[in-house]
Amino acid sequence: MVRISSSALGKSMGLTASQIRQDLFCFGEFGQQGYGYKVDSLREEIGGILGIDQGHTLVVLGTGNLGRAIIQNFRFSTNGFRLLAAFDISPAVVGTEIAGVPVYHVDRLEAFCAARPVDVGLLTVPIAAAQEMGNRLVEAGVRGIWNFTNYEITCASPEVVVESVHFSDSLLTLSYMISQREKHEEEEE
Amino acid sequence: MVRISSSALGKSMGLTASQIRQDLFCFGEFGQQGYGYKVDSLREEIGGILGIDQGHTLVVLGTGNLGRAIIQNFRFSTNGFRLLAAFDISPAVVGTEIAGVPVYHVDRLEAFCAARPVDVGLLTVPIAAAQEMGNRLVEAGVRGIWNFTNYEITCASPEVVVESVHFSDSLLTLSYMISQREKHEEEEE
Repeated sequence: MVRISSSALGKSMGLTASQIRQDLFCFGEFGQQGYGYKVDSLREEIGGILGIDQGHTLVVLGTGNLGRAIIQNFRFSTNGFRLLAAFDISPAVVGTEIAGVPVYHVDRLEAFCAARPVDVGLLTVPIAAAQEMGNRLVEAGVRGIWNFTNYEITCASPEVVVESVHFSDSLLTLSYMISQREKHEEEEE
Repeated sequence: MVRISSSALGKSMGLTASQIRQDLFCFGEFGQQGYGYKVDSLREEIGGILGIDQGHTLVVLGTGNLGRAIIQNFRFSTNGFRLLAAFDISPAVVGTEIAGVPVYHVDRLEAFCAARPVDVGLLTVPIAAAQEMGNRLVEAGVRGIWNFTNYEITCASPEVVVESVHFSDSLLTLSYMISQREKHEEEEE
């Protein structure tokens, strides 16, 4: 049985042992004082908290460059998701497969979701279509929307979670950190 | 002159007026009690804090689907960045332009960065090339790396900032929120 201490775990994540212990404490009792954590069961418990063991299902709306990049490269199964299908309107791509994932016309979205549970819709459609496609996903019964459209969609249902990936948040964070260091260097000169 | 109150600002961002006031207070004095903020100067001051006014420059390494999607769709100028060039190794793309951005062979990276200041390198190369390309960017003198490779690159220089976009962090957040709601619904039944 492999164990890991909170300080070793913290070191590999760039955190202090105390942060690790406090964060895990929010979710219950893990490990044993002085003995660390059993790696296998810690992994399993964290996976359970994150819902990785729930077998969530997902469809992708929009197979442009970004949608295609995510379908081809993102490890859905490692994150506990099954990618069932993609939807688009372009005749060039409807009826084809991308990395083994079938691409259907978006007209078939509602029928597809009625036939089987779809937990999450991933949105990579153009901004102009973002809100409408978000509405259709909610109507079709998804529980979550993973939004890459750079448009802040409004969700009519309080039961549906929207998680947006805004690249600009990340670039502005980088911009801020660079600017702070530049200021600091100027002050030192 | 257009003004906005902290409560109106908070409402549009999904925050409370108090959060807005506290957050801005971290960076100095903004607005005037009872009169709100002047929109123009608040925008300018926040832009200054984030370094949007610094004219930062950027190059993209890797023009696969993700790199291409970002070059074509991301609004660099809105975020205060100028995208100067992209680099790749594929003969199919080297020498072409993507949305007006020239694509050079990665062999030319060092010469390019020596000829003009390049503040940030955006990494969308395959995982196997991530660390090596990160090292080359640091050697070439960038101040920041915007890392989309899903690989936690190690940065030899303490002066270079690495900002990583991990899609899985976002999907696991969504997974967690969906699982929490499912548990809550089960408890209510």
